[in-house]
Amino acid sequence: MKSQISNVVSDFFFEYETQRQVLVRNRRVGVVCRLIQLGVLGYIIGWVFIYEKGYQSTDTAVSSVYTKMKGVGYTNRSGLEQIWDVADYVFPSQGDASFVVMTNFILTENQTMGKCPELPGKDNCSTDAECEEGRFKRHMTGLCLKQTGTCEVLAWCPVENDATIPDPPLLMSAENYTLFIKNSITFPLFDVTRSNLVEGIDGKYISKCLYHPDNDPLCPIMRLGDIVKFSGFNFTTIAKVGGAIGILVDWTCNLDRAVRHCKPFYTFHGLYGNPGETDRARASVGYNFRYAKHYMEEGQAKRTLIKVFGIRIDIIVQSLARKFDIIPTLTAIGSGVGIFGVATIVCDLVLLYVLPKREFYKNMKYKYTDTHQQDVDSEEGSTEKEADTIEKEAAKE
Amino acid sequence: MKSQISNVVSDFFFEYETQRQVLVRNRRVGVVCRLIQLGVLGYIIGWVFIYEKGYQSTDTAVSSVYTKMKGVGYTNRSGLEQIWDVADYVFPSQGDASFVVMTNFILTENQTMGKCPELPGKDNCSTDAECEEGRFKRHMTGLCLKQTGTCEVLAWCPVENDATIPDPPLLMSAENYTLFIKNSITFPLFDVTRSNLVEGIDGKYISKCLYHPDNDPLCPIMRLGDIVKFSGFNFTTIAKVGGAIGILVDWTCNLDRAVRHCKPFYTFHGLYGNPGETDRARASVGYNFRYAKHYMEEGQAKRTLIKVFGIRIDIIVQSLARKFDIIPTLTAIGSGVGIFGVATIVCDLVLLYVLPKREFYKNMKYKYTDTHQQDVDSEEGSTEKEADTIEKEAAKE
Amino acid sequence: MKSQISNVVSDFFFEYETQRQVLVRNRRVGVVCRLIQLGVLGYIIGWVFIYEKGYQSTDTAVSSVYTKMKGVGYTNRSGLEQIWDVADYVFPSQGDASFVVMTNFILTENQTMGKCPELPGKDNCSTDAECEEGRFKRHMTGLCLKQTGTCEVLAWCPVENDATIPDPPLLMSAENYTLFIKNSITFPLFDVTRSNLVEGIDGKYISKCLYHPDNDPLCPIMRLGDIVKFSGFNFTTIAKVGGAIGILVDWTCNLDRAVRHCKPFYTFHGLYGNPGETDRARASVGYNFRYAKHYMEEGQAKRTLIKVFGIRIDIIVQSLARKFDIIPTLTAIGSGVGIFGVATIVCDLVLLYVLPKREFYKNMKYKYTDTHQQDVDSEEGSTEKEADTIEKEAAKE
Repeated sequence: MKSQISNVVSDFFFEYETQRQVLVRNRRVGVVCRLIQLGVLGYIIGWVFIYEKGYQSTDTAVSSVYTKMKGVGYTNRSGLEQIWDVADYVFPSQGDASFVVMTNFILTENQTMGKCPELPGKDNCSTDAECEEGRFKRHMTGLCLKQTGTCEVLAWCPVENDATIPDPPLLMSAENYTLFIKNSITFPLFDVTRSNLVEGIDGKYISKCLYHPDNDPLCPIMRLGDIVKFSGFNFTTIAKVGGAIGILVDWTCNLDRAVRHCKPFYTFHGLYGNPGETDRARASVGYNFRYAKHYMEEGQAKRTLIKVFGIRIDIIVQSLARKFDIIPTLTAIGSGVGIFGVATIVCDLVLLYVLPKREFYKNMKYKYTDTHQQDVDSEEGSTEKEADTIEKEAAKE
Repeated sequence: MKSQISNVVSDFFFEYETQRQVLVRNRRVGVVCRLIQLGVLGYIIGWVFIYEKGYQSTDTAVSSVYTKMKGVGYTNRSGLEQIWDVADYVFPSQGDASFVVMTNFILTENQTMGKCPELPGKDNCSTDAECEEGRFKRHMTGLCLKQTGTCEVLAWCPVENDATIPDPPLLMSAENYTLFIKNSITFPLFDVTRSNLVEGIDGKYISKCLYHPDNDPLCPIMRLGDIVKFSGFNFTTIAKVGGAIGILVDWTCNLDRAVRHCKPFYTFHGLYGNPGETDRARASVGYNFRYAKHYMEEGQAKRTLIKVFGIRIDIIVQSLARKFDIIPTLTAIGSGVGIFGVATIVCDLVLLYVLPKREFYKNMKYKYTDTHQQDVDSEEGSTEKEADTIEKEAAKE
Repeated sequence: MKSQISNVVSDFFFEYETQRQVLVRNRRVGVVCRLIQLGVLGYIIGWVFIYEKGYQSTDTAVSSVYTKMKGVGYTNRSGLEQIWDVADYVFPSQGDASFVVMTNFILTENQTMGKCPELPGKDNCSTDAECEEGRFKRHMTGLCLKQTGTCEVLAWCPVENDATIPDPPLLMSAENYTLFIKNSITFPLFDVTRSNLVEGIDGKYISKCLYHPDNDPLCPIMRLGDIVKFSGFNFTTIAKVGGAIGILVDWTCNLDRAVRHCKPFYTFHGLYGNPGETDRARASVGYNFRYAKHYMEEGQAKRTLIKVFGIRIDIIVQSLARKFDIIPTLTAIGSGVGIFGVATIVCDLVLLYVLPKREFYKNMKYKYTDTHQQDVDSEEGSTEKEADTIEKEAAKE
């Protein structure tokens, strides 16, 4: 019993199976098939491996972004000179990846909680009945004020008048603000951590550089006016009504090369309402929000309401790292061999069904086991001789 | 030499190899194998290609979200009528993807830095010794105040009393606020940019529509009360203690179709403490945070502390675009051919080891090279004749 | 006609093709090929299936994070005792995934808009001409003030003096603050929702636990001092100048096991300027931003400017779920069969080109169709006999 098993094992190890093949010497079929096979081989090597780098596995990064604006704005409203620094014009102040730089605003100062008339033009009325209590957008008191011809509302008074947006925008000086981006990414699969302050971007370089797509593509300091320009907006327009810009930080890294080649690439896009792109320029353009500074004056709660028009900047990190990995490599090779099989099938179809000598090749390729003679029809008469031989061989068992 | 190379090349191009095969005419094996092969074919075509769209490559989007709340809240606390507008009830104010809508609050006004007794019930004491200095949660002065029977603390005084949460919630009117979502996505691999303001969602439609899953599934304006309802919460409950809701914007796009079919799909989920789902309703429910408005009064720094209970809304963008790509197509075909090979192996096992005529089929399939006669054991006697023939052929070399 | 079709169909179903193979009995080739084949099989089963779990498809989660800090800070600046609570030291206050905990600060109180001299050391001047109007960083008035020897600027006055950072940091007590993290994730492909408050993490446990990597790895409450320590920073240093820490919440889940095994794993990393890691410790360290509290005093707008040095914490959720899926399973098997084919090709090359009896094996494996005798060169004389036989067979057609 034991020797039988060892026999089977030694048989298994000392034997080797290989397919028997027909070597068809036919110019037409040969050339066609070799070209198909070379095409498949070219596709696998050239496209899958070299162009698409199919031997690599991919990973996306987890990322963290910190931003810092610099620069001072200046407004002169009817002789009132004012300075706006970072603490005044950036929302939120703590340096998030998404923030708003105020470029224009409508101030409504000294608001107190109380009752006052609506603005002329809105909720015009002639009788109290028209000023129903509890309407959705305003809280009506139910009185129609004769003086203004508008309903009285319970609100922060005086009511904000945002009919006219200051033009030119009050903070055109925002064009010269600079944005500093710090971005740290980690590819967890490959355990690679990178910062956008790559090799060569040291404190000295940062202190004097300014981002330019061609000359300083790695400088993390960008002028706001440039950002707006690169994203296709006009600064005066966007500064007036606001807008949203995405700064895409693209980390496309081939980690088979030295890690120092893994560098960020910055691109700039209008996010909602990009001019000239029909599928982007849609229904809603502009960006604004309201913000209140609360204070107490003579025991009374007051606030300054600011309708902020600004440039919202979203730092969007997009990442794709690739590195050699045995699994995708062998998967690509394995499925490539499969496609080779498909090429062979195509050639076989030509050989067996298209060529004039197809019956001859069929005989070469196939051996028939005609033990169920009822299944054999006249077409296969030509195989009888071979079938006979087989019958004889089979009889010897 | 040159003619020899050209010979080899012409041989290579004018030749073509194809496998020699046995055509087994056996009803049982034939039916079994054909069914297995048809099953594999059906799986590859039906499942991998049609159902799972294995001929497509996939990409996820980079996205940017901007939100805007509208609506006015009204509170009447002991006769003090007050209005709450967007600048008062949304945190943060600049329209982030994640924000909180205040629905209830506990105000502690006119706090100044100083020393005052703890609230009764907390840190009760009878001797100074019980009021150790520098305890973790409060900063004790070490005095036990007789009047209140509690320790004295250094704190913003008076100390906030948040034992009782206002019920019903003060800002029930929040139910009628509306949320406007602007979402812009880009699939970098396919270079497709979409906005949730898709074709047909123009300014006119937006000005009057309200999101409804069946009637207006693409309207980007949603009533807060509806959002709460769709996510399975009760508005009164969530408004009182707060809660977190995720608005999932699902972009599942087949980019082989026209890009206008790539539309967002909104779903609503309770994020922490979803009622009725045991694995979601856990330990911590409610959502609150503290917020202070600082001001100066008569040279003294004061603040109004607000414990905000609110609905936190996270706009979560989930995206998956698919598009025809030659690589996954050929990989699927290639590995499909491989699985075909597995089917053949299974059939061969049946043919060679299960069928009664297995020895016959073995002879049909295999040709033996018995040059090492010591390896041939008695079982293979039936192959001797063929082996002999081979010996003779080999001898002719 | 109909019977002919049914004939073809029955032929198709009752037939089965299998390759004809040569069983080579040769110790050397056998052992080499079997080892190669076993290696491939071992790779497919061991590596692709067991180690890399190639039978599973993967998904990443959509996630939502809510944070809450607790603890009270205390400062004593020249006898002025002050308490800092959550509303004072966390930016922003609403519990975002990314926030800053203030640990040190430079206060500039009672700033009013006006004209005042620059700080000594900056913009030193001796004549008005040196103080050009409209310089970038400051808004000069064009006057050189004799008293200070510096230019006069239009600014919030007095100008902030941030030359000296308080050392030791003012809010060293921040070390004892605690951070509570709530994280909710959903794997959309597998429809699995999980919270970091997993089974067993109930209200009672949360009320007394403190995160520790070994003892309490699932406790969602972390001491700030521990977070800093785990991320490799020194608390005093980071508290003084600020820094950024990423808390990675890693959800690597095998959903073929019970869902309760899908648990978060917390790790801590310095984000910009991690000490000791050369590729992380770069150009910019420290973290600060400016923040203003505005108020009115005697009808005049004033502000308190705070330069905040703090620890920025980013909760970064990283997720990867795997679950059995038929498609990757069959793709892996299919391409595995393909790689098997590659192994066979390698063995064939050895058999046909390396072994001494290669001509013999070539004859065994190949059958030649030498109908174009002009293509046959002398090397292939040994195949003439077989070719003759074929010619005869072909003639019978």
